[in-house]
Amino acid sequence: MIDETLKSIKPVEEKWYEIAQHRLDNLTKPPGSLGRLEEFARRLVAIFEDNAPSMNKKAIFTFAGDHGVTVEGVSAYPKEVTPQMVFNFLRGGAGINVLARHAGAEVVVVDIGVDYDFNDIEGLLKMKVIKGTRNFTNGPAMTKDEAVRCIEIGIELANGYAKKGYKIFGTGEMGIGNTTPSSAIAAVLTKRPVEEVTGRGTGISDEALKRKIDVIKKAIEINMPDPDDPIDVLSKVGGAEIGGIAGLVLGAASNRIPVVIDGFISTAGALIAYCIEPKTKDYMFAAHNSVEIGHKAMLDKMGLKPILDLDLRLGEGTGAALSMLLIEAGLKIYKEMATFGEAGVSNEIQK
Amino acid sequence: MIDETLKSIKPVEEKWYEIAQHRLDNLTKPPGSLGRLEEFARRLVAIFEDNAPSMNKKAIFTFAGDHGVTVEGVSAYPKEVTPQMVFNFLRGGAGINVLARHAGAEVVVVDIGVDYDFNDIEGLLKMKVIKGTRNFTNGPAMTKDEAVRCIEIGIELANGYAKKGYKIFGTGEMGIGNTTPSSAIAAVLTKRPVEEVTGRGTGISDEALKRKIDVIKKAIEINMPDPDDPIDVLSKVGGAEIGGIAGLVLGAASNRIPVVIDGFISTAGALIAYCIEPKTKDYMFAAHNSVEIGHKAMLDKMGLKPILDLDLRLGEGTGAALSMLLIEAGLKIYKEMATFGEAGVSNEIQK
Repeated sequence: MIDETLKSIKPVEEKWYEIAQHRLDNLTKPPGSLGRLEEFARRLVAIFEDNAPSMNKKAIFTFAGDHGVTVEGVSAYPKEVTPQMVFNFLRGGAGINVLARHAGAEVVVVDIGVDYDFNDIEGLLKMKVIKGTRNFTNGPAMTKDEAVRCIEIGIELANGYAKKGYKIFGTGEMGIGNTTPSSAIAAVLTKRPVEEVTGRGTGISDEALKRKIDVIKKAIEINMPDPDDPIDVLSKVGGAEIGGIAGLVLGAASNRIPVVIDGFISTAGALIAYCIEPKTKDYMFAAHNSVEIGHKAMLDKMGLKPILDLDLRLGEGTGAALSMLLIEAGLKIYKEMATFGEAGVSNEIQK
Repeated sequence: MIDETLKSIKPVEEKWYEIAQHRLDNLTKPPGSLGRLEEFARRLVAIFEDNAPSMNKKAIFTFAGDHGVTVEGVSAYPKEVTPQMVFNFLRGGAGINVLARHAGAEVVVVDIGVDYDFNDIEGLLKMKVIKGTRNFTNGPAMTKDEAVRCIEIGIELANGYAKKGYKIFGTGEMGIGNTTPSSAIAAVLTKRPVEEVTGRGTGISDEALKRKIDVIKKAIEINMPDPDDPIDVLSKVGGAEIGGIAGLVLGAASNRIPVVIDGFISTAGALIAYCIEPKTKDYMFAAHNSVEIGHKAMLDKMGLKPILDLDLRLGEGTGAALSMLLIEAGLKIYKEMATFGEAGVSNEIQK
């Protein structure tokens, strides 16, 4: 299934940027004066191959998973918070619910790896691959099969929501401890020292940060993830929700759907997808520059420039929801602004 | 009238920040993890002195004015574009119309100084103080009385829209040539060399930029605006729309209404207001970091940190409209997120 998906991922074609630029330069404004809004419009036109693009149906996928490594004391919160927050998402009281409503997006809550047995609850997609990953200081977080299955779930969701007519996806996640596997992935795939890509997550002390760095170093030493094999990296030092996000990005690209990458953990998932197939980059929008220090290293590796810089570090998809508002602003400019001709405005530029 | 307005401007009280912080820290998220959204919420609570603030009625004031200095060849566009764009605003086809609709804000179009005789047109506020300023390379752009009248118009609009129940204002402007007076104001009030605060506006050539710098230097030399008298600066090297914005900011502060300052030209108006009464700063939000090089110098002088950085340089209030979406996101987080208690989520932080 992954192979089939990869085969259908095409780069976006330059000619669509030119088509979009032509219209942008005819709108009643000095050329280029709407800056990145114009970039968003160009990219949407090229992704959709449509000169009148629409993003009226939006979905943010919040993948939830637990992490065995939390027994090492790498997070400020107990792991019980993961299922508690899943219930909060389903009741609509979390940050992502509020911001997705604000952006006109639906929140799709996916249990892909929570260490808790959920009953059937309206709104919860029960797609559990693993009941929390294993503590990767002792061996791989997941088997290769489990990692592949997580990616496949992301692809299946992308395919399903594309069929239902959704036009833009956002990524999100919830998983106590999940900045630890994300930093491990960042260190392996960007080849930077662990210290340079490891931050305080939800807010740990100096002592816990030192412990977290040691834990990641030990995990990399013991598991020896192969930096040239992103699925190996995902299985050994990753997490289920990170795999789901990687799959969603691959599936978005194969369906020609733009995907807004939220923060640090989402970017680790996106980087797995990028290392599997770099053409996925054409479909990604980087929502924001999070407080986590390893985030920029991963964005730089992919050549993505974040849209917002609001000191966010919540995850869930919150940054993706906010950025969708700005991406949509670019689309509306493109579709709704008058041209010089329509408005009777002079566009004769003086030297 | 200005004196009366100044008397009623009070600083916001610290205690409201603390009240807001208490609620923010009880919402289901790690403390501080929504970054600047939390800052926006705190500030709105403190400005409104209301723990359940609302910003359902929003208005963006787009002040239009012409500039005699355009005869010196300082702009890429002919001055006829100013009234042409006013008609575009009134028909809803300009960038500000699109983005204000997206943000749920009303656009208030004000002719405060256009060199064109408008008929009565629905939606246009005819409050002309001057038919284009005078070319300030030969003498003052406006008389002191005209400058005062521009400020009074801004105050009157703020008072009127406050009475009508509007909860947040944005500033905007249209005026071919108006980055020139804005750079002049920036140079005088921040005491920086003209070269450091003068940019390409709508997109002039190297040669025209050199001319623009010379024109501003000459204007300052001839008129000798007094940096300790902001109204003197406004009258000698400013513009009518810049005065209107200054007045709107003063009026917003006196009515305890937050005001989102758009880009470079709006910030020149806000800086005039700030130099008249520094307490206005408590009510200002800096929408974005524009491409114009003098913008940051003025924001730094006031200690304001821009919300967005999207390479915008259109003006009209476009950045203010976009930022309102993010300020409102902060407000919704504050009002709509569940607390730890309500959601049954553990907030016991581990060390």
